[in-house]
Amino acid sequence: MFPLPPGSTIGILGGGQLGRMLAQAASRLGFDVAILDPEADCPAGRVAAHVITTAYDDPEGLAALARLSDVVSFEFENVPAAALERLAAAGAQTAPGPRALAVAQDRVDEKTFLNGAGVATVAFAAADGPESAIEAVGRIGAPALMKTRRDGYDGKGQRWVEHVAAAAAAFEALGGKPVIVEAPAAFVRELSVIAARGRDGGIAVYPLAENHHEGGVLRRTLAPAEVTPKIAAQAERIAAQILAGLDYVGVIGVELFELADGRLLVNEIAPRVHNTGHWTMDGCEVDQFEQHIRAVAGWPLGPTHALARVEMTNLLGEEALAWAKLAAEPEARLHLYGKRDAKPGRKMGHVNRLRPLR
Amino acid sequence: MFPLPPGSTIGILGGGQLGRMLAQAASRLGFDVAILDPEADCPAGRVAAHVITTAYDDPEGLAALARLSDVVSFEFENVPAAALERLAAAGAQTAPGPRALAVAQDRVDEKTFLNGAGVATVAFAAADGPESAIEAVGRIGAPALMKTRRDGYDGKGQRWVEHVAAAAAAFEALGGKPVIVEAPAAFVRELSVIAARGRDGGIAVYPLAENHHEGGVLRRTLAPAEVTPKIAAQAERIAAQILAGLDYVGVIGVELFELADGRLLVNEIAPRVHNTGHWTMDGCEVDQFEQHIRAVAGWPLGPTHALARVEMTNLLGEEALAWAKLAAEPEARLHLYGKRDAKPGRKMGHVNRLRPLR
Repeated sequence: MFPLPPGSTIGILGGGQLGRMLAQAASRLGFDVAILDPEADCPAGRVAAHVITTAYDDPEGLAALARLSDVVSFEFENVPAAALERLAAAGAQTAPGPRALAVAQDRVDEKTFLNGAGVATVAFAAADGPESAIEAVGRIGAPALMKTRRDGYDGKGQRWVEHVAAAAAAFEALGGKPVIVEAPAAFVRELSVIAARGRDGGIAVYPLAENHHEGGVLRRTLAPAEVTPKIAAQAERIAAQILAGLDYVGVIGVELFELADGRLLVNEIAPRVHNTGHWTMDGCEVDQFEQHIRAVAGWPLGPTHALARVEMTNLLGEEALAWAKLAAEPEARLHLYGKRDAKPGRKMGHVNRLRPLR
Repeated sequence: MFPLPPGSTIGILGGGQLGRMLAQAASRLGFDVAILDPEADCPAGRVAAHVITTAYDDPEGLAALARLSDVVSFEFENVPAAALERLAAAGAQTAPGPRALAVAQDRVDEKTFLNGAGVATVAFAAADGPESAIEAVGRIGAPALMKTRRDGYDGKGQRWVEHVAAAAAAFEALGGKPVIVEAPAAFVRELSVIAARGRDGGIAVYPLAENHHEGGVLRRTLAPAEVTPKIAAQAERIAAQILAGLDYVGVIGVELFELADGRLLVNEIAPRVHNTGHWTMDGCEVDQFEQHIRAVAGWPLGPTHALARVEMTNLLGEEALAWAKLAAEPEARLHLYGKRDAKPGRKMGHVNRLRPLR
C-alpha cells in the first residue's frame, strides 16, 4: 500500500491553517485531500477535494473520512481517543500513530516518555487534588508552573505558583483537573527543532529555529538560529531519540529551552507540523508541510537544509489587515489562511522575510 | 474595488493544471477560488472552494461564475467570444481583458498587433481560400509554415509548405479554414519571457528562459537562460511594448526566436501563465502563478529575480509514473497535476531541478 501513488487521498482531521497548508502541499504532489472539521467553510476545506462537516468524534463523519482516505493524519494533537478508535475500527491507517498522540495529549505522560527516552526536561510532578498539588509544589519548589495535564495550548490552562501555600488555590483556579507542576527553566533562549521520520525509519531534521513568544503565543521565529555545532548536534540527537522512541511517522515539532550552560531541555512536543516551522515554506526546498505529506504517504523524505535566513512573524488578529503593505515589501512572502473573522489574537497568517544566508 | 482584499473570490475559466496552480497560489494569499470547467473532477476543481461544471459558453454557468467572483481570469486564451460577452453582461470584471484574448486567438491579428506595437515577427500573410493561399506562399516564399489562424496549440493545426504548388493542398489539409503563412525563422535558440503588468501599469519581467521542444510540445526549459545583457534588455523592451500595447493586466508568456545576429522575433504570445514559466515555482520568490493573482487582484507585483538556476522538464504521459524515483532525487522538485489518466503526451506534471546561480 505504501508508498501511496499520486491520486491517492490524504485525510486530515482538522481544517484550520495547518490543515490548509498540508492540503496545499499534498495537492502539489498530485494527491487529493479530505478534511474533517466541525466548522462549515473552514480554511482547509476550501482547498480540498472532500470536506466532511461533523464533530471530531462523530461516527459517521469518521467512517466517511476513513472510506475516502488512504491515510489519515491530524493538524492537532488533541484528537479524542474515541476518534482514533473509530478510525482504526473503520480500517484507516493513521499517521502519526495513536501512541504519539496519547503521549502528546498528557503533559505528565509526555515528560515521562521523554525522560525514559533519554531526553532531558525540567523537573516535574503530577497532582490530581489540592493535597497532592501542595505536595507537588513542595517537592519541585516554588515558584513553579502549574499546568493542566491535558488540553492547554498557547499559554492557556497554566499559572505560576509563587509559594507552596498558593498551590491548592492554583489547582482550583485551573478547574480542579489533574495538573503537572514544573520547575522553572532558567533558559537563555527558546529554540525549536522540526524533524520528520519516514515509514522506512529514515529521519530528516531542519536547522534549529529561535522563537519569541508574547503572552504565551508565538510572535516571531528566526531560522536557521545561530547556534554552535554542539547545540545543533544535541538537537538532532534529541529529535532522533523522540522520533525513534515513538516509532513516529510524519513531522514533529520539538520546543526546546537553551540553558546558559549549553544544555537543551525539551519543553514540549507537538506531533504535527508546527508554527515554528512555517519559515521552511520560503527557506527550504521541501517545507514542513510537504515533508509531512511525504512521510505519511511513505515517500522518501526531502532535503532540509536552509536556502535563506528567514524571519517569520505571525499575523495576529487585525495585524493581517496590513496585507497591502506587506504584499508590497519586496523581501516579504505573505501567507494568509483564509479565515473570515480577524478576532483578537487569532492566527490569520504569517509573513516570511528573507535574508541571505550568512 | 481593487486591490481585492483577502477573502475575495478569484474566478478561473478552465480547470486544468494552469488553473490548479493558479488556485494554489490564490489560496496562499487568502483568496477563495471558483473554477468553471466542462469536465467534472477537473484538476483545479479539487483545490478550489467553488466548482461549476458546465460548457465554457453555458449562460447559467457563466452567470454563476460572475456572481461568485470578484474578478474572472483564464487558464487558456481560446475563450469563446460569447463567454466573454456573457461575463461582461453579468457585470464580471475580467483580466486580462477581451482585447488581449481576441488578439491572441487569431495569429494574423496577433502579428499585426505586434508589428504595430513596434515588435518584430517573421514575415507573414493571411489567406482564406486555395487561391489566396497560393498567393500568400508566393509572397512569403517557400518553404513556409502554414497554420490555421485560430485554435492551434502544441504544434497542432500547422504544416510546412515546401513549394508554392503545394499551397492549395496544404490549405485543404488544414481544413479549409482561414490560415496564416509564415516565413521560416532562422533561429539559433527558442527563448521566452514571462512578464506581468499590474492594474497600476507597473511591469515586472522574469529572466529569459531557454526552451526545447519535441514534436511541437515543450520538453525542457532552462532558466535563467544565458544571454547577453543586450538580449535581456531587448526582451524586456518587447515585453513592455506588448503589455502596454494591450493595456494588459496579468501574466503573459512571450515566445521568442533568437536570430544569429542577436535580434529577437516574437513567435507568439500567450495571455496567461505559461509552461515555460513553471521554473519560477522553485526559482523565484514570487512565481508566475502568484504574480498573476497579484496582478488581477490589483495587488503590487512581486520580485522576479532568480534565486537559483532551474531545469524544468515536463512529465508527459507515462513519464509521470516515475514519481517515486523523482521524489527521491534531492535536487528535484516534483509538481504533479492530479490528472487521472496518463494518456500519451498528456502533461501530467513537471520537475524543477535546482542548481546554484552562476
